[in-house]
Order: sequence, then C-alpha cells, then structure tokens
Amino acid sequence: MIIKFTKNVKESQIKHIENILKNQNFTTSYIHGDIYKLLIVIGDTSQLETKRLNVYDFVEDVINIQKPYKESSVKDRKKVKVGKVTFNDNNIVLIAGPCSIEDEESMDLLVPKLKEHNTSIIRGGAFKPRTSPYSFQGIGKVGLDILYQISHKYKIPVVSEITDVRDIDLFVKNVDIIQVGARNMQNYVLLEELGKTNKPILLKRGFVNTIEELLLSAEYILANGNQNVILCERGIRTFENQTRSTLDISAIPVLKKLTNLPVIVDPSHAAGHWEYVESLSLAAIAAGADGLMIEVHENPEFALSDGQQSLKPDKYFALVDKIKLVAQAINKKL
Amino acid sequence: MIIKFTKNVKESQIKHIENILKNQNFTTSYIHGDIYKLLIVIGDTSQLETKRLNVYDFVEDVINIQKPYKESSVKDRKKVKVGKVTFNDNNIVLIAGPCSIEDEESMDLLVPKLKEHNTSIIRGGAFKPRTSPYSFQGIGKVGLDILYQISHKYKIPVVSEITDVRDIDLFVKNVDIIQVGARNMQNYVLLEELGKTNKPILLKRGFVNTIEELLLSAEYILANGNQNVILCERGIRTFENQTRSTLDISAIPVLKKLTNLPVIVDPSHAAGHWEYVESLSLAAIAAGADGLMIEVHENPEFALSDGQQSLKPDKYFALVDKIKLVAQAINKKL
Amino acid sequence: MIIKFTKNVKESQIKHIENILKNQNFTTSYIHGDIYKLLIVIGDTSQLETKRLNVYDFVEDVINIQKPYKESSVKDRKKVKVGKVTFNDNNIVLIAGPCSIEDEESMDLLVPKLKEHNTSIIRGGAFKPRTSPYSFQGIGKVGLDILYQISHKYKIPVVSEITDVRDIDLFVKNVDIIQVGARNMQNYVLLEELGKTNKPILLKRGFVNTIEELLLSAEYILANGNQNVILCERGIRTFENQTRSTLDISAIPVLKKLTNLPVIVDPSHAAGHWEYVESLSLAAIAAGADGLMIEVHENPEFALSDGQQSLKPDKYFALVDKIKLVAQAINKKL
Amino acid sequence: MIIKFTKNVKESQIKHIENILKNQNFTTSYIHGDIYKLLIVIGDTSQLETKRLNVYDFVEDVINIQKPYKESSVKDRKKVKVGKVTFNDNNIVLIAGPCSIEDEESMDLLVPKLKEHNTSIIRGGAFKPRTSPYSFQGIGKVGLDILYQISHKYKIPVVSEITDVRDIDLFVKNVDIIQVGARNMQNYVLLEELGKTNKPILLKRGFVNTIEELLLSAEYILANGNQNVILCERGIRTFENQTRSTLDISAIPVLKKLTNLPVIVDPSHAAGHWEYVESLSLAAIAAGADGLMIEVHENPEFALSDGQQSLKPDKYFALVDKIKLVAQAINKKL
Repeated sequence: MIIKFTKNVKESQIKHIENILKNQNFTTSYIHGDIYKLLIVIGDTSQLETKRLNVYDFVEDVINIQKPYKESSVKDRKKVKVGKVTFNDNNIVLIAGPCSIEDEESMDLLVPKLKEHNTSIIRGGAFKPRTSPYSFQGIGKVGLDILYQISHKYKIPVVSEITDVRDIDLFVKNVDIIQVGARNMQNYVLLEELGKTNKPILLKRGFVNTIEELLLSAEYILANGNQNVILCERGIRTFENQTRSTLDISAIPVLKKLTNLPVIVDPSHAAGHWEYVESLSLAAIAAGADGLMIEVHENPEFALSDGQQSLKPDKYFALVDKIKLVAQAINKKL
Repeated sequence: MIIKFTKNVKESQIKHIENILKNQNFTTSYIHGDIYKLLIVIGDTSQLETKRLNVYDFVEDVINIQKPYKESSVKDRKKVKVGKVTFNDNNIVLIAGPCSIEDEESMDLLVPKLKEHNTSIIRGGAFKPRTSPYSFQGIGKVGLDILYQISHKYKIPVVSEITDVRDIDLFVKNVDIIQVGARNMQNYVLLEELGKTNKPILLKRGFVNTIEELLLSAEYILANGNQNVILCERGIRTFENQTRSTLDISAIPVLKKLTNLPVIVDPSHAAGHWEYVESLSLAAIAAGADGLMIEVHENPEFALSDGQQSLKPDKYFALVDKIKLVAQAINKKL
Repeated sequence: MIIKFTKNVKESQIKHIENILKNQNFTTSYIHGDIYKLLIVIGDTSQLETKRLNVYDFVEDVINIQKPYKESSVKDRKKVKVGKVTFNDNNIVLIAGPCSIEDEESMDLLVPKLKEHNTSIIRGGAFKPRTSPYSFQGIGKVGLDILYQISHKYKIPVVSEITDVRDIDLFVKNVDIIQVGARNMQNYVLLEELGKTNKPILLKRGFVNTIEELLLSAEYILANGNQNVILCERGIRTFENQTRSTLDISAIPVLKKLTNLPVIVDPSHAAGHWEYVESLSLAAIAAGADGLMIEVHENPEFALSDGQQSLKPDKYFALVDKIKLVAQAINKKL
Repeated sequence: MIIKFTKNVKESQIKHIENILKNQNFTTSYIHGDIYKLLIVIGDTSQLETKRLNVYDFVEDVINIQKPYKESSVKDRKKVKVGKVTFNDNNIVLIAGPCSIEDEESMDLLVPKLKEHNTSIIRGGAFKPRTSPYSFQGIGKVGLDILYQISHKYKIPVVSEITDVRDIDLFVKNVDIIQVGARNMQNYVLLEELGKTNKPILLKRGFVNTIEELLLSAEYILANGNQNVILCERGIRTFENQTRSTLDISAIPVLKKLTNLPVIVDPSHAAGHWEYVESLSLAAIAAGADGLMIEVHENPEFALSDGQQSLKPDKYFALVDKIKLVAQAINKKL
C-alpha cells in the first residue's frame, strides 16, 4: 500500500499515520521526493480498509498495489469434473438447451439430438429471475424434476440456475452443476452457502461487474471450501444497444492470466439475438474459452422466455461443425 | 406494440404473425407505407414476450410502446409513514448514522446529537455485503439488537440493510425500515418476500440498473401487497472514477415524473469521499429529492467500513444548516 | 512513479530497469517486501511514457502517482472576464438563447427579454455539428453576422460553437466567447490554435471523456498562452437512457477541487428534454456551478434543432426566479 | 414515425399535430386503442427533427422506426482497393507497423520483415493526437516523407492518421489510406473534406460512439462522393479497466449486417497490452473481420508511444501463423 500525502502535509501528520500503521504491525518506509511525499507500507495490506485513510485532509491518495483476491489465482490450471466431462483440459465443452424448461416432451425431443452433436451438458431454467414481476417466472420445482429425469434417461449432466438460498438442497439433489446468474453474482449469502457444498458452480459475471469483482465472488465460494468453480462471461452493460449486452471478449485472456479456473462464454445472452450467436461463439473459442453455453429451442417463436436469442437445432448443429474447425485451428479438442 | 417488417417480407408471413396475435386476442392494424411495413398491435401487450417475434427473419424490429411497470405509476403522491416521520409530504427527511454499527457506546454518543440536528431516522449496517470475502462483514445479529435498543431509548426510527431472505423476521422485529442494498435490487426472491410484510422498504437503485429496472423491482414489492416503498438513488457505474459512482441527479425528476413513490438520495455512497458529500446533498435537495441518507461517524479514520465517505458530526451539522436554507429556497420543510 | 515487479523477477531484471531510469536522470529506491517488490521512482515522471515499461514480462504494473495536468491546477480562483461579465466571482452567470440561430427577427424578439431577466450572455449556434449528414447543419456564416449585430445592438456578449479550425479568425471577429463542443473536446489541433488567441473559450466536456481528460484538453489551450478558459459539464454517456446524457453533477465539486477555472453547466443538452431542465439547473447551482447555459426558444416545436430540450421564455423566466432563491441560499449573487 | 400521445390528450391537440405534418406533406393514420393513442406518420421521416414534437405536453413519446443512415447500407459487399490489396473479398488483410514513426532506419529494419510475413499494408503515425499536450506528438511532416519513401522502396501501401483538416493535400500525396482516428470520428468538417477526395479512408470507431454513429460518420464521407471507406472497431469505453478499452467483438457481425463496407479490427488499441493482442486478433478473425491493424515495434520498451501494446516482430510472426489457421477454418484467404 502506498500513501500519497498532499504537498503541505506536516511532519506530525505523517508521524500520526505511521503510528496507526505500526500499531497494526506494518513496517513503513517514508520517501520524500521534490514532487511527492509517500509512505510505503510493507506487509499484507490486502485485507486492510485502506481507503479509510482518505479521511485525512493531508492524505491525497491511497494506492493499493496488492490484488484483493487470492485463492483463485493459484498457478496450476484447475480442472473441474462433472461426471465424465472435464473443464479446463485443453478442450471445448458445449452446454446447450432451452432458456426455460417448458415440459418433458420438448426436452425428450431436443436432448438426444443435442447429445449426438457434441453437446456434453444440458441447460434448462426452472426458476427464472425476470426484470418484471409480470413476466413468466419459470415452472419452478417441476422443472428440476424434469431435468433430473432427463439427466438419468440420457446419461448427460444438467445445469440450472438457482435464485433462492433456501433451494440449495433441492438443487444439490437434482442437478449436476448449479448456476449462479448474473443478477446474483454479488448475492454473497448465496455464494457462501454454495461454497459449503461440493457441487460444481457455474458463476456468471454480473452484467455490470468488473473482472476483479467476478474473481472476488468466486473467492466467496472457494474460501468456503468448494473448489469446483467455472466462470462464465456473458456480456456487460455499455452504451451500445445493438446487442443486448456487450460481450467482453477480452475477459477471456484476462481471466486466463489472473486465475486458474475454467472460463466459458454465454454468447446467447450477450448477443440477445440469434443472428449474432455464431460469430460470438467462434470468437470466444478463438480467444481461448474452455466452453460455451448456448440456448437452443425447437420453436423459439413460442419459447416462454428469450426466444429471440435461441438457435433452432439445425442452426446449432451447423455452428457445432464450425466450432470444431476453429477448435482444431487452435489445437483444442471438442 | 409495433412490428416492423423487413422490406422483402411476404404477405403470407405477415398473415402468419397476424394469426399468432389474433389467437392471443389482439387486434392488429396493418400499415403499408412506401418505406416501411408495420403491424400495429392494439391491446395490452405489456406482459407479452414481444422480443420473441424477432426470431423471424422477416421481422426487423419489435417496438414496445407501453411502459412495462404499472403499480408504481399511479398519480397521487404516495406518502410513506415511519413512526411520526412522513416521506413525500413536501418535506425533507434526513437519515444519518454510521456505515456499520460497531458497538452500543458509539451509538449512544452519536445518536442524540444527530437527533438534535434535524435527523429523523438513524441508519446503521449490521450485515454488510462486501465485494471481498476477506473484508469486515458487519457484526450481524448483535448489530440489530443495538439498533433496537437505540431506537427505543431515543425514540427514533432505525433502518438497516438486509442481505439474506431468511432474516426477514429478524428485521421485521428489530428495525423500522428494511433497506435493500444496490447489490440486491434484483434479488427477486427477497423482494417478493418483503412484499408480503408491511414494513417500509428502502429500495436502493443498483449501481448498474436503469430507472425502469428500479421501478420494476419496486413492483415486485408493491405487487405482493406492501405499498410502503421508498426509492433511493445512490449513483451508477460509469467510466468516470474521480468519484466512487456517478450520482444520477436526473433520476430524481425522472422518477418524480414516472412514479408517485418517495425518492431519496444517498450522497455518501455516490461520492465515495466525504469532501463531495455536501455538494451532492445540496444538489439532490435542489433537484427535488424527498430526503437524504448520509453516513456520519465520530472517528471515520477508524471506521470498520467506508470511513473515507463518512462525515464527522461537526461537518454534518454544518451541512444540515445549509440543507435548511436550500430546502427553504424551494419551499420545502426540513 | 512506482514499478511493481512480478514475484519471480530476477535481480538482473530489476537492475536493467534501474539503469534505464538512471540514464534518464531519475533516482530510484528499491523496496523488497515479503509480498511485493517495488521500485519507487523519484523525480518528475509526469511526462514519461510510463506505461511503456509494461512491455517487460517481469513488470506487473506501473503506477503513476502524479497528476498529468498542471497549469489548470494552480490555486487561486481564476476569474474570466467577458465584457462586463465576470465568471468565477462568487456569482452565477446565465447564458441563454436558441440552440441554432434561425434569423435576425427571432433574435430581436428574444434577446431583449432574456436580457431583462438576468441573462448576461446570449448563445446561438451558427455551425452545428450533427450526427447525421442529412440533419440541419446551421445557417453558417450568416448566423455569426446576426450574432455580431445582436451583440452590438443590445450590448450583450455572445457565444457560438466553432467546428472548423479554419474559421478561427471569423469567430474572433464576431463573437465574445468561442465554444468548443463536446465532439471537439479532443480536437487538439483546434485547441492549440485557440490557445494562440486571447478570446475566452467555453470548453465543453466530451460526453465520453473523463474529468482528467477535460483538464488535459484545457491545458492544450492554457499551455499555448490563452488563460481564459471556462469549463462546461454537459452530461456523459451511460447506460441510462431516460435522459439524453447523464449529468455528472459530481464533476462540479471535483473540478472545483482540481482546478481554479470557472465551471458552468449545460442542463439542456444533459437532459435532452425541457421538463428536466429546471431540476438540473437548480441542482447545478446548489452543487457550486458558476453559471448555466440554457436553451430558450419562442417556438420550440418549430426549432430547427433540439426543440425538445428548449424552454419557452415564460418557463425560463420562472426558472430564473428559482435560481435566484437557490443562489441566495448558498450565498451567491445572480 | 410514431407519435404516442398521453392519455388525456384532447382531440384538438391531435388535430394540431396532424396539421403540422400534413403541411409537410406526410400522410398520417390515427389509431385509438384502449391503452394508447397513436399517430402513425407515413412517408420518409428519416430527416425530420422528430424529437422536436416532444415539446408538446400531450406528446408522450416520438418513436423513429426508420434507420437514419442510408448510403452505407446498400446490399452488395463493397470491395475497397488499395494498390493490389482488396478489402472485403472473403480474405484477411493484415496492416502492421509501429504506433509512431520514429526514423527511416527503424522502418527499413522492420518493413521488409513484415512484408515477408503476410502483411499487406504498413501503418505508422506521424501526427499523434495525445490526451496530454506534454506527451510526444509525433514527428509530423517528416514522418509522412518517411512513409512515402518506404512505400515506394518496398512497394507496399501505407496508412497514417490525419488530425488536421488543413493537411489533407499532404496526406493525399504521401499515403495510400488516410486514417481518421477515434477522437476525430465526429469531426464532421474533416469527414466532409475527406469525402471530396477519392483516397481510401480508414474510419475508426470513436471509443464512446455507437455503431449507428459510426455508420452516420461514414455517410459524411460517402455522401460527399468518396466510396472507399473501411470501418475499424477498436474498443469502446466501459467500466472495465483491465484492458485499455473493451473490444466490442459483436460490432463485427452487427456491422456486417447493417452495411456493405469492409470492417477491420485494431486489437492493439483495444487491449492496451501486448499480452492480449493474440487472443483478440484470433477472435476478430473468427467473428468475421476483414482484416487487422496491429502495432509491431522492434524495441517496444523504447517506443515513443504505446510501447506496452506493441508486439515484438517474433511474437507478431507467430501470431500470423495462427491467424492463417483460424482464417482457413472459416474459409478465408490470408
């Protein structure tokens, strides 16, 4: 930590700060240049409320030079296993399925086809967090039952989004991966409780959250003991509105540098329109993503949510073929 | 709702859409201009998944012309009462107190002084949602006990932030207003359950949420029966980082136009630095806010959270004097 | 400047950096903590291409602790005089007039009334930078002639926006203040040439520019010799679209802290809708702005540009009365 | 255009609006639903100041349903030729070179190597628009001379950025493509004058500009007669600051849908750090970009500008090999 004083700071004021820090067992080093006066604080200040020192008139700035996150930045690539599927193994994992589960019949129609086309995991929303209380909110518990049936019938892992901390047991029983959606990325109570399970957690970046905040949210899970975290970039909110969100493609290499966790991309929510899903999917693979989560629906025009961003199966299968070629080009298995 | 077709749309395609809508009991009116082909849909489409129609190649755009929120846009100004305090009564309500409650002694020192200086409600965080799992997380339940004591001892209502849906009973018992923080503005499960109580709810705008989303979150509470909602603007995330957030001062007149709920401002979190709190407070009052929530701490340099943005009592009292003058200038009581 | 090395940096690598800096006559101080290894660079690094050092694998971060701007941060409040009007003199200066000048008759009708109602400077666009090449682009040189006539007939200074560096002489002759619009805030060639005149310059913040960038653009003018710079906040681009831009009200106290230049606000462009102009105007005054620039038009429904954000004269005069009261409340003259 | 009236609009008011529009030769169709009252305006309203009608109290909203741009949205893919290089021909064009030209020797060293490695065009800045007046501003006219020499010596086209409308002749003589930088994307005077030349123009998206604004800026050039426009996405400003800008990867498919102009990407400025250039380059190709502009420097640690984002030649050559593979995977020639 570095404290920059104002030009007219008094010696007694610097001493005051040094004493506060010494009482907390930090070593300090004072540097008096022509242009600025600095106090370098040596020791682990990552958990210090450093900004608090800004309260002094004579402190111009407090600069944190330590990264605030730790567990997730260990070096070796962390492989996350879900049944026979492994994330972060120099491969591409495809997750696909409808935005919302509607009924068992439609899943029975769709899932076998997806499985035939390189899809390793099935997605389906049962509880849908919707901006408006008057929108369709998902079919709830029944949806989880359907997912459970499907998973066993077709021997394929399933993922679904949790919205209520009180539902953790229900999810642990019924799904293979628990998804934390963008709106709950900073629902710390939920993250902590999920950290106490050992289910793989698919943690989506909030559409207004920084990469650093995503890593800190991951730490809420990791620090509570659950090491099976998969990060998911799904677009951030910007001034551009041709797409629903702006896919932050750079987040992939940045996360790959800062953390050893697997990183996947949700091109459907980022684009908000099926026409752009192909380009974003291929871009994500080329940029180094470990997988994709794509919305597929037999009749998107009648989907109960997000139809406009869902691919029809044929379009999805054509995309899978292209994904294979790009994956090959960068030496990854699909 | 208006559907704009692409130029090369076929008549059969337009018919197809018309039929879908007729089956849902909507009346449509087709307008064929030189430049565009439109289908005007008459009837209440506010709850329709309109975007879904974008799935058709021949649909260029679907334009919603209805506002998606309803309950909160009724006309007469809604007064929210908390003990003897009334919000939205052509007056200014001041809420003040520490970011986090630390112990009873410091509250005993601070609260009587605040009460003497036009402060009608005391704030204090017990459960603190923090970006990092390693930061101070509040003193928890004990903090609520202290608030309860303080409230009764000094006969002044108290407000505190809830972070866990399982704590609702605890909050209903101990505080007079339950605050939903920025990070939980879209925690719909929490909003729904709070809608089933009749406690006043202080709903803060998420730092990345639009005004429309704030109103829709308010509807989650209103639609469940609880009409005592107070909205709070606290700054949004932008590219500017001289301040912690960018206070969206325009949100005040916009909300005053769109809803009848009271609107207050939290200048402390918006600014992120005590030096700017005065300017933002006076601006909020001049722009028409119904109140302010300001962080005050006896020794901000030792505050367990957010010290840098807390005012020392003397500075706060001086600010209250200025607020009085500005309130007078625009014909409001403090 | 502080250089933070990666954990596995070698001693020879640190030496390499020290040598580069010594060759540029900087003194360095190496700090080897348990957690990080830092090189503190003493001396004026404000003009160094510091980020360049990031090119080394073993450099984790380069932190600039000097502010990059200088001239505009001198301490004493800089008064800018335009005829008998003085900015930054513990007073409020009102600038008003139509977005675009349309003809002399309408100015003859409007200007005397504005002058009677505490307006000290008349605004009017002659050259209009428009997003679309097919929109009305202003009446051009004729508009400047009209402004010149009006200015002399009614003895009131005038301000108009320049869009072409080749027009500087024309503007110097015809107007009292030259306005640089938001889109040209980083047109450095224009700023440099304006810096060589001694006309007062009204420099508007770009809608996507930081406060730091605004100050650096001001330096382009100041460093070339022209000290008569008035800064103008007019809203920034954010995700919120209920208003045309988001007025960054915090920019007022931040600029007042960082620079001694006068700071005014344009509530009309920020709001983009006349209904919100009053609230934003009063807020800006309460937050400490030195003046306001407001669009007023006799028949906004027929204005050739930006009618929707223009106030009719009666509404403007009513606003002026309110501005007087708020100015009084904070001890400023109008 | 659609005008939505408030609920309590009077018939006479609707008539008033209809008359205004009839006087401008528009046909209107009034739709009176239970929930809303609309006036549909038929005819080409794309150049109308539609927002102006918002000035009426009884007009709730004015919705434009026409796209404001035209020339650039013609259907057939527009090929832009620069010497023997063709953009938009189902191929990838690589542009590379230093951020700033420093001297002829370093170009002599670098250019032949770049040419050998699939680079078809050389970039080099002579006039540098810099945020601070105290930063290195480029070597100016001498730089253009060097570019001209290099271009002829190695028979390879060159591109450089223009910053002053008065320099157009100079650029026309010396370079093969004139670049308009992000900060000048809305310098309409410059765009108009460039539209009167027939040089290929590389138009970079402003870091805060929407895709629609980029297209409208392109129209300033196209409408003045110059059809040789190449669009360049280079990242937009968002709240995320791990990278210099956020590369808007979605802009590629969106632009490919809305316009027939070639679209390239500048990964160097978007990333702001050389480490991320590879991922962004491959992603851009996979997403459908027609080319890349990449900064390459022999000794980035001594570059006079933007060294941190420049690739060393070896890294660039390795990247070119990977680009080839990804281009192949999506059926494009490099």
